[in-house]
Amino acid sequence: MTDGQPAIPEVFPRAVAVIGLGLIGGSLALRFRNAGALVLGVDVDPQAIAVARRRGAIDDGGDDLGVAAPADLVIVATPLEQIVRVSLDVARHMRAGAILTDVGSVKAPIVSAISAALRTGVSFVGGHPMAGTERKGMEAADGALLEGRSFLLTPTARTSPDAVAALKESIRCIGMRPVVLDPVQHDELVAQVSHLPYLVSLALQRATADDARAIAGPGFEDMTRVARSPGAMWAAICRDNREAIVRALARFERELGRMRTGLEAGAIYEVLTR
Amino acid sequence: MTDGQPAIPEVFPRAVAVIGLGLIGGSLALRFRNAGALVLGVDVDPQAIAVARRRGAIDDGGDDLGVAAPADLVIVATPLEQIVRVSLDVARHMRAGAILTDVGSVKAPIVSAISAALRTGVSFVGGHPMAGTERKGMEAADGALLEGRSFLLTPTARTSPDAVAALKESIRCIGMRPVVLDPVQHDELVAQVSHLPYLVSLALQRATADDARAIAGPGFEDMTRVARSPGAMWAAICRDNREAIVRALARFERELGRMRTGLEAGAIYEVLTR
Repeated sequence: MTDGQPAIPEVFPRAVAVIGLGLIGGSLALRFRNAGALVLGVDVDPQAIAVARRRGAIDDGGDDLGVAAPADLVIVATPLEQIVRVSLDVARHMRAGAILTDVGSVKAPIVSAISAALRTGVSFVGGHPMAGTERKGMEAADGALLEGRSFLLTPTARTSPDAVAALKESIRCIGMRPVVLDPVQHDELVAQVSHLPYLVSLALQRATADDARAIAGPGFEDMTRVARSPGAMWAAICRDNREAIVRALARFERELGRMRTGLEAGAIYEVLTR
Repeated sequence: MTDGQPAIPEVFPRAVAVIGLGLIGGSLALRFRNAGALVLGVDVDPQAIAVARRRGAIDDGGDDLGVAAPADLVIVATPLEQIVRVSLDVARHMRAGAILTDVGSVKAPIVSAISAALRTGVSFVGGHPMAGTERKGMEAADGALLEGRSFLLTPTARTSPDAVAALKESIRCIGMRPVVLDPVQHDELVAQVSHLPYLVSLALQRATADDARAIAGPGFEDMTRVARSPGAMWAAICRDNREAIVRALARFERELGRMRTGLEAGAIYEVLTR
């Protein structure tokens, strides 16, 4: 450490590979490159690679998973339904001792599928950065989206503690907040604060008349913004975390039902302050 | 019109009085003053008057409704439960031909109470600017909150068409969008896009565990922001628009119930795309 530069710990990866340069993958690439890592990008879409180069998110890239071979840290940021396959494929190219993580919004099925089939020598730690917007793609990637946000990690009893410690430190180095959770607990909590809010936003959009939406103010816009995010992503999430989402929905419906019966009874104060 | 300045129509008020210098009243005062009107402020709190002066929102002000006497347009921006009383009181000070409006979030009860008791010579047009934040008070007032937003007007068959036309033009002059609605229709639509979203936001806050909220991302923050707005304001709104709110809640609950049963049946695609 010289000249007042912040210390970069020894565990910080010299080279990071990001597989899937969409909104989240691209934003992570931008932050890791700004923090001093060499960043390699892999995407099946040459346009995403070109945009990532132009925007300074990657040093090199291509459509072949072999691009990731030199990386100390590989982040799989593909659509949810491809994460298990791509993780196992890219692991075959990775050097021994390297760390593999992902950004999927559902963790238990991914963690158990990858852990069961992963080659020796690579440490997988399930990951989930809690960030996003209603936009998509490398064009919309923005390092600021991740600033100060939680990056959830879901190791299991079999995960290398050194790999978890190194990944936590790397996450701190890119200005995010690592939070360690059990994979099943992750899915339960994220159902409540991410998956449920999406469905609520969609239901709010649907349960309002066109002429009502036409006069809506900023509060309604805030609450229906997430309903405009890519539907295909949410279909995969709902499929993979269906039971926890149903439980969160049922709990929310009970809360709403209590509010409505309270209002019907004229118990305004009780409804708003309990 | 000279020197490329935008035309200010003759109906634009030379003097505007704002009664209640809170978030909305203060923001309106800022916009009217910036648009060239002399702005008079009335508030029971001397601190609100002092802040309004310091921030350039008013030319003069005090705690006496007589301050409003010279105004061509008087805007009552007090808490909802005081609007009827304050409107009838201030009308006694107003000059013949002046226009009186308000900013209440519920219109039918206010419009009928004021119309029934208003002195001759003053034209009342119910108003409701669709804007706000979770903050409150003159300190948080900000003209930008109103930029491009709808300003709903709810005249009745007995309201002077000239007063409505003049008020619409004044609203356009401060960069807002006038929208004319029947008072009962207003309350029904606003229940859907403003009052329901508040209760949904509150229910979302309550139906999530503490450890879930601790890891939440920006989507959840967007959806629970309105739940942090002043509870007393919402209690008054729920009291005055209870039936429409209950209808909007019931409609929303049916939509959520359909989603949940769809998910339980594994009909993900149907739930997300219908």
